[in-house]
Amino acid sequence: MRAPQQERSRATQQRLLEATVDCLVLHGWSGATTTVIAERAGVSRGAQLHHYPTRAALVLAAVTHLAERRAEEIRKEAAALTGDRDERLDRVLDILAAAFTGPLFVAALEVWVAARTDPELRDALVPLEARVGREMHRLTVEVLSADERRPGVREAVQATLDLLRGLGVANLLTDDSHRRGLLLAAWKLQLTTILGT
Amino acid sequence: MRAPQQERSRATQQRLLEATVDCLVLHGWSGATTTVIAERAGVSRGAQLHHYPTRAALVLAAVTHLAERRAEEIRKEAAALTGDRDERLDRVLDILAAAFTGPLFVAALEVWVAARTDPELRDALVPLEARVGREMHRLTVEVLSADERRPGVREAVQATLDLLRGLGVANLLTDDSHRRGLLLAAWKLQLTTILGT
Repeated sequence: MRAPQQERSRATQQRLLEATVDCLVLHGWSGATTTVIAERAGVSRGAQLHHYPTRAALVLAAVTHLAERRAEEIRKEAAALTGDRDERLDRVLDILAAAFTGPLFVAALEVWVAARTDPELRDALVPLEARVGREMHRLTVEVLSADERRPGVREAVQATLDLLRGLGVANLLTDDSHRRGLLLAAWKLQLTTILGT
Repeated sequence: MRAPQQERSRATQQRLLEATVDCLVLHGWSGATTTVIAERAGVSRGAQLHHYPTRAALVLAAVTHLAERRAEEIRKEAAALTGDRDERLDRVLDILAAAFTGPLFVAALEVWVAARTDPELRDALVPLEARVGREMHRLTVEVLSADERRPGVREAVQATLDLLRGLGVANLLTDDSHRRGLLLAAWKLQLTTILGT
């Protein structure tokens, strides 16, 4: 009887985490209350409190879940790429740009901004974000097949992620895809030169 | 009697706009209510409603005020620079990075993120942000003495601003200045090459 119950618990947790991300995207931080999230997940308040006793615990678990899901998606899409090195770089940048303009980025940004003025959330989020940031960097190095021992490569990978974060914010209120496409085309050429062959 | 009253009105407006920015930085969007802002400004609710009938009107005026103040500061600091072209570029990037990590950026980000899930605020903010974005681009071209007719220069100026926006977000919860310094040092070299002599 143990295994099915663990499975049910895991399914409930998954539903709660997905609902948290959905509610952050739909209603923003202030609208994504635990009540609204439980309703969307179709989970009782009791079950919600059993798995995640506080709103902070739920949101932090959702950010972790979200980062893992994003990393998985990027790794999977990058693994499916064919073509030479330049074509791969071109496509990898598009995959990363899609990640930084999608719902997972929007949900994470809602939490970052809320954490700025919420000390409890902030203290818990900072170490988590440091870990997520390191993993995102490592993943980007991996999917770009970048050699960080070459001068400038480490900084260029970091700049790429910071640029994409900036482009994600620029896309918050309007569809910025046309401008982003032109800008990324130029960035890809730069990056190709820096990464070398 | 007209002029002194206009002056008093202008002073009241300035106090309200500064208080709005302060409250956004201190309390975030949800904490920066019109009541809290009026209290901080030392302005009666009646006077506040006379000048800015809605929270959206107040916040949009504050964003405009904030963008103008930021542009003035950048222009003034850039005008005071001496040195050759490379030294100026180095310092200009530092001035811009300071703008994108300071309180004015934080206040603007609070409003952008709130506007994403607030249709009224969003509709009013989008044209304003487009204008502010164009002016920031023009200002950056000016202070970098960049020649946008050269290939790649326009995209490089845009990438600089998007990169700085990303670095601003990366600095929200922790002091990211060490990493930012290393990253900007590498970008300055890139930008020097792209802008040419």
